[in-house]
Amino acid sequence: MKNRAKESILRVKPYIPGKPISEVKRELGLTDVIKLASNENPYPPSPKVIKVIAKEAYNVNRYPDGDCFSLRQEIAKRLQILPRQIVFGNGSDEVIVLATKAFLNKDDEVIIAQPTFLIYEIASSIEGAKVVKVPLKDLHYDLPEMKKAITPKTKIIFLGNPDNPSGQYITNKEFTEFMNGIGEGILVFMDQAYFEYVDSLDFAGSIKLIEQYKNLIITRTFSKLYGLAGLRVGYGVANEEIIDLLNRVREPFNINSLAQEAALTALKDESYYSKVKKEINKQREALYKAFDKMNIDYAKTCTNFSLIKVKGDSTEVVNKLLKEGVIIRDMKHWGMNGYIRATIGTSEENKKLIKALEKIL
Amino acid sequence: MKNRAKESILRVKPYIPGKPISEVKRELGLTDVIKLASNENPYPPSPKVIKVIAKEAYNVNRYPDGDCFSLRQEIAKRLQILPRQIVFGNGSDEVIVLATKAFLNKDDEVIIAQPTFLIYEIASSIEGAKVVKVPLKDLHYDLPEMKKAITPKTKIIFLGNPDNPSGQYITNKEFTEFMNGIGEGILVFMDQAYFEYVDSLDFAGSIKLIEQYKNLIITRTFSKLYGLAGLRVGYGVANEEIIDLLNRVREPFNINSLAQEAALTALKDESYYSKVKKEINKQREALYKAFDKMNIDYAKTCTNFSLIKVKGDSTEVVNKLLKEGVIIRDMKHWGMNGYIRATIGTSEENKKLIKALEKIL
Repeated sequence: MKNRAKESILRVKPYIPGKPISEVKRELGLTDVIKLASNENPYPPSPKVIKVIAKEAYNVNRYPDGDCFSLRQEIAKRLQILPRQIVFGNGSDEVIVLATKAFLNKDDEVIIAQPTFLIYEIASSIEGAKVVKVPLKDLHYDLPEMKKAITPKTKIIFLGNPDNPSGQYITNKEFTEFMNGIGEGILVFMDQAYFEYVDSLDFAGSIKLIEQYKNLIITRTFSKLYGLAGLRVGYGVANEEIIDLLNRVREPFNINSLAQEAALTALKDESYYSKVKKEINKQREALYKAFDKMNIDYAKTCTNFSLIKVKGDSTEVVNKLLKEGVIIRDMKHWGMNGYIRATIGTSEENKKLIKALEKIL
Repeated sequence: MKNRAKESILRVKPYIPGKPISEVKRELGLTDVIKLASNENPYPPSPKVIKVIAKEAYNVNRYPDGDCFSLRQEIAKRLQILPRQIVFGNGSDEVIVLATKAFLNKDDEVIIAQPTFLIYEIASSIEGAKVVKVPLKDLHYDLPEMKKAITPKTKIIFLGNPDNPSGQYITNKEFTEFMNGIGEGILVFMDQAYFEYVDSLDFAGSIKLIEQYKNLIITRTFSKLYGLAGLRVGYGVANEEIIDLLNRVREPFNINSLAQEAALTALKDESYYSKVKKEINKQREALYKAFDKMNIDYAKTCTNFSLIKVKGDSTEVVNKLLKEGVIIRDMKHWGMNGYIRATIGTSEENKKLIKALEKIL
């Protein structure tokens, strides 16, 4: 059948996710394993979320609400936008896929940073698009160079803000300059998966930007601060025309019903998640201190993860850490050999990481 | 942005799902509403499933296992196939989408029955393929005519077995004759969403068929008999080459973690689901008796739903039933004006349907 498949898919390198804890335990015969590889929130969901999941489990024989009515209303109210300005995805990574599917024809062009979240490239390549990569400059987006890369064939520009794996954000001033002169026919896709962690005042993170720029979509997710990665729910916000196009290629029941209930409940439990955020910020500072003490070269970020420069081959370091029961992300697949990426864990997890790093490095 | 979107998506008519109970209550101000519109299992999941969901709710801060390790092993063992012969979908409808995405280029051809499950046409059309429709003959697939419709451009033939909305199945003899002479470069996609309900000995439902036909994929789902429609999990089974191609276009975390645990638990609770099946069979017979008494023209099926012929416009009938608190499917969108489709409900639900039909017809 291979010779009858779409040609573009044969060239795509698949995404390699962080290994699940269960897999590492099974394969290495370990009992005590921690995962700092997928930028997850290390704390369980709020007790209210756990309660609503248990309650709604009785109703999973029914299809989910394909329109996500209640969650849509709640998010629209909070962001002061229209309900029809939201598209939901099975994680915000599905919104990336919807955008590539709705807009990209073979040989269209997409602009991304190098390195950045791999799904931008994978999803675009599946559609047969050419992916133009613009290297980071001191870990920051080189927005002037990205703008220069635009051609008449450019359809989408992906901006991780803050970006993964760099953990850096785009400022309002940088973004305004960047958007100046960008044609309305180019979709600017701003992925804000980690926006809740950013406290800087000059962060170009406001939802209001979609009013100003009709070709801008901003995505957010419940997988990071809200700790619902296992349930798969994210969304994109843009003007109604873009949302309508994305909905045309969306599967009717892409958001499961427990995810809808959990996300709605999580949004309303602000006190729990603000405590979680404070704790993660605290742990990030503690980790930085430990890195400083050990003379580890790392990037300060506004997110719940950090890039670490290691001596020698990063895959070797990652494999040694695995044997110590620490799952961490190798950046070699992302084109950054010599780098690993660590998620900020709980106090206990971070201590285990430091201990393992002390042993290995 | 519309003029920059992929041309094929602008022509696609969206799928209209059965209305959720909550929506009908809200819009019509009703309190007592039943849904017989989406061929759901009317009973709650097994107590063991409910328990495992409540337990695993604590861990949804972690991403799901993108490989569905445990569920994959269990299904492989039960079906006596290799783990790598399975691809998972966010519902088996996602497997349909994966197939169209992996194989269809613009202007390729797809063959389907008319009427049949709408997603075959929608997913194919999004990829820009031409959808050739072969009318049913006395509600059965006209397989000889479908075979005649093959051209060098044909990439996929979709066979619902048993099909929705007809509720009829393909026999072993019919299938063998059909496959005879079909080139190995055509993917034959057999959707077995309702296979658990079929008891007939001549049903072409065996997984063994994939050994015989290298171009055959069979899909199954946990949304129907297993009552996990809200959680979204289905799968396709085929030879490893086809599965590899589909995995290339699959998002890495498409199956949420509660769905994986629930499906695994459901598979093992055979006694619960065999009781559910018996009850649904019993209710189907009771419903047929009531239809006979009322002189209603309906199709006997091997599934948990039945087509009903109504006098006049089916949308009018459906709207009148809605006002009585009964959500039922209008077949007009499926090209069958004058028909509605009713899911077999609980004894109580079926009585409400009969009462409403008596009032209306």
